[in-house]
Amino acid sequence: MAAFDQAVSLKSLGGDQFEGHTSPAYANFVGPFGGIMAAQALNAVMQHPGRLGEPVSLTVNFCAAQTDGAFTVQARPVRTNRSTQHWIVETTQNNEVVLTATVFTATRRDTYRKVEHSMPAVGVPTDTPIQGGPKRVEWVNRYEMRFVEGHFPGKWDGSGQASTRSRLWMRDEPPRRLDFCALAAMCDAFFPRVWLHRASFVPIGTVSMTVYFHASSAELATTGTGYLLAQAQGQNFFNGYFDQTAQLWNEAGALLATSHQVVYYKE
Amino acid sequence: MAAFDQAVSLKSLGGDQFEGHTSPAYANFVGPFGGIMAAQALNAVMQHPGRLGEPVSLTVNFCAAQTDGAFTVQARPVRTNRSTQHWIVETTQNNEVVLTATVFTATRRDTYRKVEHSMPAVGVPTDTPIQGGPKRVEWVNRYEMRFVEGHFPGKWDGSGQASTRSRLWMRDEPPRRLDFCALAAMCDAFFPRVWLHRASFVPIGTVSMTVYFHASSAELATTGTGYLLAQAQGQNFFNGYFDQTAQLWNEAGALLATSHQVVYYKE
Repeated sequence: MAAFDQAVSLKSLGGDQFEGHTSPAYANFVGPFGGIMAAQALNAVMQHPGRLGEPVSLTVNFCAAQTDGAFTVQARPVRTNRSTQHWIVETTQNNEVVLTATVFTATRRDTYRKVEHSMPAVGVPTDTPIQGGPKRVEWVNRYEMRFVEGHFPGKWDGSGQASTRSRLWMRDEPPRRLDFCALAAMCDAFFPRVWLHRASFVPIGTVSMTVYFHASSAELATTGTGYLLAQAQGQNFFNGYFDQTAQLWNEAGALLATSHQVVYYKE
Repeated sequence: MAAFDQAVSLKSLGGDQFEGHTSPAYANFVGPFGGIMAAQALNAVMQHPGRLGEPVSLTVNFCAAQTDGAFTVQARPVRTNRSTQHWIVETTQNNEVVLTATVFTATRRDTYRKVEHSMPAVGVPTDTPIQGGPKRVEWVNRYEMRFVEGHFPGKWDGSGQASTRSRLWMRDEPPRRLDFCALAAMCDAFFPRVWLHRASFVPIGTVSMTVYFHASSAELATTGTGYLLAQAQGQNFFNGYFDQTAQLWNEAGALLATSHQVVYYKE
């Protein structure tokens, strides 16, 4: 079983309750990589027998660092309509909340489609050298990253840059067929914009992330193990919190997900 | 009391429970304007005696149309840390959930600041003519809107336009000192991007909206009754749901809020 599948696997405890375990393969500086925690929360909804439709929207709030070991995910369908459903998710450890999430699922219908934010023209993935982030952080090794622009700062000299836009080709390492949980995790795989902006290694922590899915499982299956072009940019850095807006396209130019997050930073 | 204050006013029912009433002044096509529902949910957190700090992040999920009359808001602090707090909010009518929200509040500290997404150069508000949306929808009359570009479609002839970017100067009507609840409501005051994109009056409904606040109450007080430059643009229209990204600056160029939403559309 791939590291990702192992990390997001949950055991049903009956009803709305699931049990999972943190994965050393996705360890971050402190606690697990936020993207894997988001994927675990979403996976509880995906595995819930009462689920209607597929994910359209996911918001994850990171309340506290998880400690290594078991955790419980409660995924509660709070409103079920004819073709839509709203979920509240709470992940707990020792009866303390470490993560909350809301998920919106829906049965989609074929309608008019149009990508307005179209994929920028960049080189093909295999012509772009592999270059990731800090390898000593274990989860970074679970992604193949090929930076087109806005790569991980080479030195912490405070030089920084006005634009924090990053563009990179990315996929799971080892390659794995794309699904909603993996896509949600990738939305959190950008290194913090404040590091790029200031070239200063300030402490950070994502507090909330939202993902909008613009794909059904069929589009994700078509993407398969291909690369995603992932783009992220900050919008504002204000008194301890900055935000980031992100887009992830597949190689065919389908905008599979748009995402946003707000991140704590010190100083 | 201004219409806005009346609309968001809540009576404490003790503990985490509050009672509110829908306001005819903010009526939409069906049920209330989503922005006022978001403001009511946030106001329950603002009025909660256990609140720590000020709002940094708000996600609101619209689960069902509210009917006219009373509703109950439960605002539950699920995790309180040293300087941050996570909330789950549920608005119910007749014991059915009509709205869920998560809110993150924090005590901010003065840090490095930088607006990366700077305000575009547009004319001053008073040189921009007042031009709103469909006046027969009551809530639209609660905002003074002065469109710089991307105004409400004049005719439904299917002509549409590739870019759905709107820019407008906006404030409460009558003018009212800005606060977090009013700012949250304004983040939902854009007409649906799909109407601009297709010049077709298709049925729509926001399902989830996120607001990141880049201001403390001091910055909002400084903004006072001044105008906000509000910008919104769609990113993707896919099988029944499109998203929108938005920015709201005050006249001094402070980016007070960034916001995103995903919206159902038919056909």
